[in-house]
Amino acid sequence: MRIGELSQQTGVPIPTIKYYLREGLLPAGELTSPNQARYDDAHVRRLRLVRALVEVGGLSIAATREVLAQMNSCETPLASIGKAQFAIASRTEPHEDAAHADAVRQVDELIERRGWRVRPTNPARAALAEALAYLTRLGHEDALPMLERYAEAADALAVPELELTLSRKDLDGMAETAVTITVLGDALLGALRRMAQETEATRRLGQG
Amino acid sequence: MRIGELSQQTGVPIPTIKYYLREGLLPAGELTSPNQARYDDAHVRRLRLVRALVEVGGLSIAATREVLAQMNSCETPLASIGKAQFAIASRTEPHEDAAHADAVRQVDELIERRGWRVRPTNPARAALAEALAYLTRLGHEDALPMLERYAEAADALAVPELELTLSRKDLDGMAETAVTITVLGDALLGALRRMAQETEATRRLGQG
Repeated sequence: MRIGELSQQTGVPIPTIKYYLREGLLPAGELTSPNQARYDDAHVRRLRLVRALVEVGGLSIAATREVLAQMNSCETPLASIGKAQFAIASRTEPHEDAAHADAVRQVDELIERRGWRVRPTNPARAALAEALAYLTRLGHEDALPMLERYAEAADALAVPELELTLSRKDLDGMAETAVTITVLGDALLGALRRMAQETEATRRLGQG
Repeated sequence: MRIGELSQQTGVPIPTIKYYLREGLLPAGELTSPNQARYDDAHVRRLRLVRALVEVGGLSIAATREVLAQMNSCETPLASIGKAQFAIASRTEPHEDAAHADAVRQVDELIERRGWRVRPTNPARAALAEALAYLTRLGHEDALPMLERYAEAADALAVPELELTLSRKDLDGMAETAVTITVLGDALLGALRRMAQETEATRRLGQG
């Protein structure tokens, strides 16, 4: 198909597709003449994944390129899932105050308590510590016990999430599924939490 | 305190504080001379909230300003919690294809099935539909049954989250707690999911 049909099938405007091509998020099409290229179903699929990462996941172009590169560079499912996940993680520079030091300790204790196996390099450790540190800094220490409830939810979801990933027939499919579930899962949970919270608030506080 | 101490207490560089002041994210200090202002603990607290929204929540400056404005503009806890939540929601233009139409129907059915009370204007509906539509577009229809598991997790968490919010002694405190828990809760859950997923992957696939 030509770029116009690729645009029509995916709803992505042609200038945006050209931008993704220049940025290396989408492999070049097969040239059929000096200024015309042909695209196929793999392009449709890749373009949809890019849109999910950028639009739903809020990833930057650089982060998206990194995820795509990591996704297809591994020789075992575990490596593949891990690399893609690490690439998705956001990295912020922590403010290293007392709240941060406490939070790092709380993360270690949580991992130990739950018997989790999390590599020291997993960026989710730092992301969790930073969020916990802000709870303390903002005076919401009484929210910290809820951490266990969040962790239980994460544990319960990880089992079917991994089942789904491992059900794919090849490494590329597994990596893509892991990335998709991680990013779209964040969005699903975020939206569902807001709805459940509105429901609970309305139940408790009456008609809004 | 002067701006230097405000910077020291929060770890936010002075130029960034000045930028937030110009952008209206932080109320002006009390002028003590034509070019010197004094700040207090309310500034420390507000500055930390802004950082949590921007750094952990990934909100834009405009979105942060909107959240802060909505947070302190209500007369009942329900209105206050609702307005702040609505302001936090991300809004993307959906691609209105068949997958999107199906997804909108799935969201309505889910709300009905769970007996949730979600206003038609809650932007979480559109956010959920968009994430579900991408699952279908990427060929992961077999992930859709997991939606129920995610919804159960959201339901279970909403109860203690609301308890915590309602335990605050005034409207401003409730609104701030609702905003904080919504934004930091997304980050906590995201980080915990990645750790639980690594744990489960390592258990199932052996040492990485």
